[in-house]
Amino acid sequence: MIKKEVDVSAPVHELITGRWSGVSYDPQQMVKDDDLRAMAEAARWAPSCFGDQPWRIIFCSKAGDPEAWQKAFACLAEGNQPWCQHAPVLAIICADSRFSKNDKDNAWGEYDTGAAALSVCLQAGALGLMTHQMAGFSPEDAREAFNVPDRYQPKAMMTIGFQCAQTDIPEEFRQRELAPRQRNPLSENFFLNGWGKGF
Amino acid sequence: MIKKEVDVSAPVHELITGRWSGVSYDPQQMVKDDDLRAMAEAARWAPSCFGDQPWRIIFCSKAGDPEAWQKAFACLAEGNQPWCQHAPVLAIICADSRFSKNDKDNAWGEYDTGAAALSVCLQAGALGLMTHQMAGFSPEDAREAFNVPDRYQPKAMMTIGFQCAQTDIPEEFRQRELAPRQRNPLSENFFLNGWGKGF
Repeated sequence: MIKKEVDVSAPVHELITGRWSGVSYDPQQMVKDDDLRAMAEAARWAPSCFGDQPWRIIFCSKAGDPEAWQKAFACLAEGNQPWCQHAPVLAIICADSRFSKNDKDNAWGEYDTGAAALSVCLQAGALGLMTHQMAGFSPEDAREAFNVPDRYQPKAMMTIGFQCAQTDIPEEFRQRELAPRQRNPLSENFFLNGWGKGF
Repeated sequence: MIKKEVDVSAPVHELITGRWSGVSYDPQQMVKDDDLRAMAEAARWAPSCFGDQPWRIIFCSKAGDPEAWQKAFACLAEGNQPWCQHAPVLAIICADSRFSKNDKDNAWGEYDTGAAALSVCLQAGALGLMTHQMAGFSPEDAREAFNVPDRYQPKAMMTIGFQCAQTDIPEEFRQRELAPRQRNPLSENFFLNGWGKGF
C-alpha cells in the first residue's frame, strides 16, 4: 500500500497512521479466508459497553462466493460502484440496537460497532490490505439481500483488498488516490482540561 | 501492563489483542501531556463519514489541572469511582450529532466517534498505558461541568494511566483484574458470504 504522509505533533504507531481509505484495488489479488478471519478476530476483541459486542459483520468474498459479493455490490451507491467493482471483498457492518443480555435499547451499539470496524481496518493494514468504509449504500437493500434481522442496523459497507501498483491506478482515480491526507487542526477536536482548551 | 491470553483462530496484531480494560491504576505515575497529544493525534487520523471528524475529546489530567480532573471524576457513576480515583487522566468523549459542513443530522457521529476512541486506546497501548471506557457516568453532568454545546453528545468516559504492579492490585479488584478475557465465539458475530454463515 502506498505510504502517505500525515502531519502529527507527536509520534503515533504506524499501524494507526498507515491506514487510509484508497480506491484503487488490484482485481487480480484475492483475499484469503484466513486473512478475513484474522480481521474478524481483531474486531471480536474490541471493547464494548457491558461487553455486549453489538457488532455483526458479513464478509462477502468475490472469489469464495461471487453471488454473495454481487448481492453486496448491488447495495452500493452508484457513485461508489466504479471503484468498488475491483475490490475482492465487500463487508456489511451492522449494529445491534438492543443489548443481547436483556433486550433493552443499547445506546452504544453504533459507537461500539464503529470501534469494531476500525479494528477490521487496522488488522487489514497489518496484513498489507487496504480498506475503505462507506456510508454510500442502501441499508434497506442490504437488509433485504442478506435477511438482516430488524434489531440490527446496517451502518456501513467496507471494501477490502490489495491496492494495485501505483502505475496501474486508473486515470480517473489517480488524482484522488494520490492526494495528500487531511484532517482538522488538532485543537479543533481535542481539548486539554476543558472544552475548547488547546494542548 | 499485564499481558492476558486471548483465544484467536488466526494471528492478530498485538497492538489490538494487547488492549484490555483494567481497573488497577498506579496513582503515582502521571501521564505526560505529550503522550496525551499522541493519543489525540491517533484519534485525529481515524476515518469518518465524509471526513467530518465528529469526535470531540476532553482529556483531564490530575497532575496538570486537578480541578478539571475532579469535575470529570464527579460525573462518574458511584460504582466506577472507587477504581477511577487512581487514574491520572479522565477523558470525556463526545459525538457531534450534525455534520460540521452543512449542519444536517449525522447518522454516523457515534459510529465514527467510537472508532476515534478506540484509536486513543490503541495508541495508549503503544505507549504502555492502560485505558478503560465507561458508559457509567452522567452525560448531563458532563455537559454542564464542561459546557459541552448542545449538538455534541457525551457518549463515554475513559480512564488513562499506567497499571500498577501486579502485587499492588488492591484486594477488592484483584479477582476482576486477573480474570481471563472473554468474547462470543467468532461465528456469533462474524459471517462469511451470508448472515449467520460461519467461516
